[in-house]
Amino acid sequence: MANIKQIAEAAGVSVATVSRVLNHHPYVSESKRRAVEEAIERLQYSRNMNAVHLIKGITQTIGVVLPQINHPYFSQMIEGIAHRALECNYQLMLCQTNYNLDEELKVLNMLRNKQIDGLIVCSRSISLNQMEAYTPYGPIVLCETLHNSTLSSVYLDHYTSFQKAIHYLWDKGYHDIGFTLYRHNSSNSLRRKQAYTDTLHALGGQPRKEWILMNQIGIGGGANLAKWFLQMNEKPSALLITGDDLAAGFLIAAHQNGLRVPEDIAIIGFDNQPIADVLNITTIDTRLQEIGSRAFDIAYQQINGEHEGPVTEELSFRLIERGTV
Amino acid sequence: MANIKQIAEAAGVSVATVSRVLNHHPYVSESKRRAVEEAIERLQYSRNMNAVHLIKGITQTIGVVLPQINHPYFSQMIEGIAHRALECNYQLMLCQTNYNLDEELKVLNMLRNKQIDGLIVCSRSISLNQMEAYTPYGPIVLCETLHNSTLSSVYLDHYTSFQKAIHYLWDKGYHDIGFTLYRHNSSNSLRRKQAYTDTLHALGGQPRKEWILMNQIGIGGGANLAKWFLQMNEKPSALLITGDDLAAGFLIAAHQNGLRVPEDIAIIGFDNQPIADVLNITTIDTRLQEIGSRAFDIAYQQINGEHEGPVTEELSFRLIERGTV
Repeated sequence: MANIKQIAEAAGVSVATVSRVLNHHPYVSESKRRAVEEAIERLQYSRNMNAVHLIKGITQTIGVVLPQINHPYFSQMIEGIAHRALECNYQLMLCQTNYNLDEELKVLNMLRNKQIDGLIVCSRSISLNQMEAYTPYGPIVLCETLHNSTLSSVYLDHYTSFQKAIHYLWDKGYHDIGFTLYRHNSSNSLRRKQAYTDTLHALGGQPRKEWILMNQIGIGGGANLAKWFLQMNEKPSALLITGDDLAAGFLIAAHQNGLRVPEDIAIIGFDNQPIADVLNITTIDTRLQEIGSRAFDIAYQQINGEHEGPVTEELSFRLIERGTV
Repeated sequence: MANIKQIAEAAGVSVATVSRVLNHHPYVSESKRRAVEEAIERLQYSRNMNAVHLIKGITQTIGVVLPQINHPYFSQMIEGIAHRALECNYQLMLCQTNYNLDEELKVLNMLRNKQIDGLIVCSRSISLNQMEAYTPYGPIVLCETLHNSTLSSVYLDHYTSFQKAIHYLWDKGYHDIGFTLYRHNSSNSLRRKQAYTDTLHALGGQPRKEWILMNQIGIGGGANLAKWFLQMNEKPSALLITGDDLAAGFLIAAHQNGLRVPEDIAIIGFDNQPIADVLNITTIDTRLQEIGSRAFDIAYQQINGEHEGPVTEELSFRLIERGTV
């Protein structure tokens, strides 16, 4: 590895001058600063990138906070982020947090400590207030509905998507509607619950707490969902299932139990996963890949000084009509 | 950010001494080195991690090379890697390469440039020779069968798994066997092709090139696989399908086309994905999460000096008997 002395020799300056450049000291002539930077470039065959990052002040790395990698919801988002990162010559620092607060703070501190240039938060446990305190250290982009914040966000509004899906079911004659949620108190879950209550009240329907099932996830959760449905005395006639893999698992279990879809139970899935296409499941396209790529672009533009202040961007969803309603 | 001058003041040494410590200069007394390191720790509220990494010589970051994130095969592996990384307080630098050689080289150079402490290669395009040249810069762990290399590896042997699956089909009376491959020339694909030919020859069967289908992937590829199968005049009686999601897509398309499984066509999937359980698909458990976590552990132990030289570790697969054979 080229050390500071070799750089000084190659640049024809003193070691102290190299130190000053490395530490962004103001009293260095422009010509000497350039000479040092060029020497480092020239010696790149053995340069330590940590030294280069000290000089440039950027790492060409974006952090991504997500609870879990191996889940279609998040892996679609990462796909979108990774695609744009590749095109922009950026690396991704992937931080699987399992919704652990300490892990989320650790990543925020990576931003403060200049180990990453910006941060994309796919989902979080930490409060917005806590996160906003890190705004001065670099761009932070959240993937959830957000207004009046110092943080940026790109999202699809889950209030509106639930509202639209309920209207669609209502118009098709399904008035007894239930739904699934993975987390009780996530920002997206709270908006979905609110939309459920508001929309059914507005339509003259009956929101019912016993028609909400929590904590089921993935295709493997479908059997639990079917069991829950079969055990109820008063059953809903339609379900919003927040994840096409869970909807697919339910559909398969429903068939195995002799239920007809949509005659006995209509379903709308979410996220437009490939399995929904294969099994002809009506779904809401939540555009996860695009949310990921837009989140990267917003962070990238802010790193490069193209935006002052937070950016808020809402993508519109679409309902894909297939055979389960 | 604490600059070199502040560190020097806090440590009670000269700026030149801090420089020497930062650059691993040999002529620094142990007490002064410790004073500088302690000053940096004390000033951590504003330290630049790139400076800390210069001092410590480690980044607590592992690079992961993989062609694609949003695919069950790789996301299961990442899950295993990420789980152990979280436990060991390591970050993951995720490099989605799309099998692009330049991207793979870029990550290898991150290892040389000390931006990462070690590297896990889930799948690659680059030659082993090219990769071995990077061995001096840090641990590199591949997830494929490897012998007599300076690189480490952890793998499940796909020659043996194909051999075992073919024997299983043969014993059940299926002698006309085909299979799918995603990539033509990957190390795993070459081993699978060899096992197919060798095993059928040994059994007195007939390996047939027209019974190999390339380039299909994911549940969406199942319809193409079914179409290919239906169009053949002489059809195999069984298929090894390298990916349970692809096998699931095939199973669904087969049912839609009035084919009975296993009566008209028996199938064995790979990877023991949740969808194989839900659809009762016979599969080979390729233990991808464990491969990921073991790969991390090997790299981690080498970073911490617990191993000299390359480590080779083979995991054993198991065949899970279900309803499609």
